[in-house]
Amino acid sequence: MNEDRKRAMTLLKTARGQVDGILRMLEEDRYCMDISTQIVAVSGLLRKANLAILEQHMNSCVKEAFLAGEGKGEAKVEEVMRVLEKYGR
Amino acid sequence: MNEDRKRAMTLLKTARGQVDGILRMLEEDRYCMDISTQIVAVSGLLRKANLAILEQHMNSCVKEAFLAGEGKGEAKVEEVMRVLEKYGR
Amino acid sequence: MNEDRKRAMTLLKTARGQVDGILRMLEEDRYCMDISTQIVAVSGLLRKANLAILEQHMNSCVKEAFLAGEGKGEAKVEEVMRVLEKYGR
Amino acid sequence: MNEDRKRAMTLLKTARGQVDGILRMLEEDRYCMDISTQIVAVSGLLRKANLAILEQHMNSCVKEAFLAGEGKGEAKVEEVMRVLEKYGR
Repeated sequence: MNEDRKRAMTLLKTARGQVDGILRMLEEDRYCMDISTQIVAVSGLLRKANLAILEQHMNSCVKEAFLAGEGKGEAKVEEVMRVLEKYGR
Repeated sequence: MNEDRKRAMTLLKTARGQVDGILRMLEEDRYCMDISTQIVAVSGLLRKANLAILEQHMNSCVKEAFLAGEGKGEAKVEEVMRVLEKYGR
Repeated sequence: MNEDRKRAMTLLKTARGQVDGILRMLEEDRYCMDISTQIVAVSGLLRKANLAILEQHMNSCVKEAFLAGEGKGEAKVEEVMRVLEKYGR
Repeated sequence: MNEDRKRAMTLLKTARGQVDGILRMLEEDRYCMDISTQIVAVSGLLRKANLAILEQHMNSCVKEAFLAGEGKGEAKVEEVMRVLEKYGR
């Protein structure tokens, strides 16, 4: 597994642990805004993990497609755009 | 636990399960864009959970603070704004 | 016009001026990433303007609805949630 | 000017017109949630314009850098990532 994917994995494992923590906060009837702040923090981890996956994708699959020519790179970019449309919303 | 919090809990448990699934996808060296699409989906669940928490907060803590008067409601709104600043980014 | 709305107006006027600037950058065939960075900056201004409007709404319309009772406050909160659903995406 | 940039230009001109409309709504003291909904709509236009710029960048500058080799493509991808970090927040 390459560095970007390892980084994404670490971020996702941290996010998972924090979701467990938020579930405990809900069970302990903790203050809403503390819970909300934690959820926003987990979203930040997911965003970073996604960027690591996107960067790795562009430096491997998209790169190879551009080098292969015949519009293959543009097709891969189109695919990335579809994900970014959902990601940036 | 009220309905909004139960809804948030269900969403967070689903999100946790999906993060587990993404970790498996990484271990199975699955295609980058499939992984990225899943991460975006989990972010959507977290966003919904956060909205459930915010709605419940506004209908309880913020409401009571407004009814108590003396600027207490405005202070609670200020607090919500700080979370929304991070949430919307 | 209250302070929050004045703040929103200032932010929106700045955003408008920056959109003009981005259009000029496009006409001058400027570098893509410089244009993209400017668009992200304008989005930030819009987000701040929206928060100012939301804050003012919660401290006026939502507050008065809570004080009027009979579930009117909850109805206003429901409305805010619908906007936040789109805003946070 | 290529198609993506023309599309970005059209979106930005529409966004500028809508910001003018929002400024009028503020002067006419229109309802907060109507104003907020309009601001969210303009943000959507900016997001689309930004995606058009990013797509064009990847299919030109990033592509050429990959074809030039020597890590130039990876440097361009790094640059895109910095913008995406701000864009997705």
